Amino acid sequence: MAQQNRNPQAGEPDAGDVLGTYLRSQATAFLRALRRYSPSAVSGADAAESSGAAHSLRGAARRISGSLATFRVVTESSWADGLRTELVWLSSTLADEDAYAARLARLTGALHRLSGSPELPAPRGSAGALTVGSARAGALLDRQLTLARTRAHSATLQALGSSRFHAVADAVAVLASEVPLDAVAARGRVGEVLVPLAAVAESRLSAAVAALPPPGAREATPSPYDADHDGQWHEVRRLLRVHRYAQEVLGADVSRPAAAGEALDRHRDAAEAAAASATAARTPRIAPATAYALGVLHADQRHEVEAARADFQHLWLREPAVTPI
Amino acid sequence: MAQQNRNPQAGEPDAGDVLGTYLRSQATAFLRALRRYSPSAVSGADAAESSGAAHSLRGAARRISGSLATFRVVTESSWADGLRTELVWLSSTLADEDAYAARLARLTGALHRLSGSPELPAPRGSAGALTVGSARAGALLDRQLTLARTRAHSATLQALGSSRFHAVADAVAVLASEVPLDAVAARGRVGEVLVPLAAVAESRLSAAVAALPPPGAREATPSPYDADHDGQWHEVRRLLRVHRYAQEVLGADVSRPAAAGEALDRHRDAAEAAAASATAARTPRIAPATAYALGVLHADQRHEVEAARADFQHLWLREPAVTPI
Repeated sequence: MAQQNRNPQAGEPDAGDVLGTYLRSQATAFLRALRRYSPSAVSGADAAESSGAAHSLRGAARRISGSLATFRVVTESSWADGLRTELVWLSSTLADEDAYAARLARLTGALHRLSGSPELPAPRGSAGALTVGSARAGALLDRQLTLARTRAHSATLQALGSSRFHAVADAVAVLASEVPLDAVAARGRVGEVLVPLAAVAESRLSAAVAALPPPGAREATPSPYDADHDGQWHEVRRLLRVHRYAQEVLGADVSRPAAAGEALDRHRDAAEAAAASATAARTPRIAPATAYALGVLHADQRHEVEAARADFQHLWLREPAVTPI
Repeated sequence: MAQQNRNPQAGEPDAGDVLGTYLRSQATAFLRALRRYSPSAVSGADAAESSGAAHSLRGAARRISGSLATFRVVTESSWADGLRTELVWLSSTLADEDAYAARLARLTGALHRLSGSPELPAPRGSAGALTVGSARAGALLDRQLTLARTRAHSATLQALGSSRFHAVADAVAVLASEVPLDAVAARGRVGEVLVPLAAVAESRLSAAVAALPPPGAREATPSPYDADHDGQWHEVRRLLRVHRYAQEVLGADVSRPAAAGEALDRHRDAAEAAAASATAARTPRIAPATAYALGVLHADQRHEVEAARADFQHLWLREPAVTPI
């Protein structure tokens, strides 16, 4: 180890103090949520409590892994890299079940809204049959997404019983009391160590945002149903979270990244709902009325994608709403 | 007839002069377009020339009937009512053929744009089959709208050969040289006769605009695919035209009603294209992929309807573009 070459004034917290406090509090939140989490709860208050706990657990896991990524050099890097990988695995595993449930709720809600339309086709033109396609599409989506959710639930239970999970939980338990820091970097001033690292995270985000296709440019993105750019947007969502958690470490106001992040959450949800609708339409031997309703639903969700992109641009870049030409 | 009770200053044109000049010039435009119009031309420059002539003919017919409606009391009213009815019949008969052609072009263009989507479903997941549904939907719409257009063409030819049509043409030919005016009202000042009548047309328009459902109010209009309000919007389009022609009579600047009217033309076109897509989806025994593409197309056109409404609100009420929440 090199000699300590920084010597903050007495009483001023150094980079390690600030990062350590944040990581310990998130580790504590993780452990608290884990105690409340019971994925085998199937109904009522227990299931709602468990779902809330899973949400908290994932949030804490993301905050720990995100801040370990940004402030990697302030910690023992090899430890940080290992824990980060495991936390990303855990939070993505835990996310699937809720994601399928939310997707089904979103699509069912959209179908309900859309089936008010007198133009959804009726096989025989009778008023009562107007929503036949919509009802069948809803039943098809319910079957497919409930099956996916059940599989995700099994995967979650399997993950929670694994030695891999217990190793992560143990590592977080250690983190709650002691954060492995780099002896040199951790002694630096916050403004000289953490702030520049947070700026790197922010500039990665800015570059990704600048590389997004221009909003509302129909020529550039000829079809609103074109999912080609979704990946770029999902990456912006990831980088925005990393930026937000870095700002949380610094104690900064995160209301703007939080609001912009909600728009990108809606973007992701709508894009995946549109894809689920397109997937359902590929089911063999469905009725034309069902396929038609799924087409309407797909287009509706892709328009929600476009709306979420406009919301993000507005919230994040403070650009005015796009004026219709 | 009552005694003339108004006596405009010498040299100042009276209400009859102003209205008469406008009606004569529109009647002349009608007759000029009629000479260029040859609906039996089937291809090339002749067909394009004829289509342009039909457009001019309809425009002149609408201007005559619109100004006769607004300034009815300045003319011989029973004559005005009769001619107006016949001109409305003629312009709506002539409009159908072009409307079907334009609708097919709009839907084909939209399908072309939408079929760039990697998410239009492929029956077997092969990349080459991605646009099968879109291509079939295009072929189905082409068949249905070309049939409708052919029927409209026959109806046009039949109308042009009818004694009803020749009577209208004769009446317009008379109008080109002499406008039957009300002896009293026509002698009034422009500001005392025409301006108040134009204000009545404008207030009818304003009342219809004020009665429109609020833009972007998702709660009030739960589904963008809900065609319930289309009729209200089509009536605003009709009243806006009447207002515009009244302003033309007065020699006012009509660039704002013209621009707002174009938005309402797009609104009407998109609403009818969406309805055509829904109608095509009711065709018996179509493939699910075709129905799905028609569903996407329907939703796309209903979103164009929403965009046209927002454009109108922006252009006409000078309201700022709706900010996405």
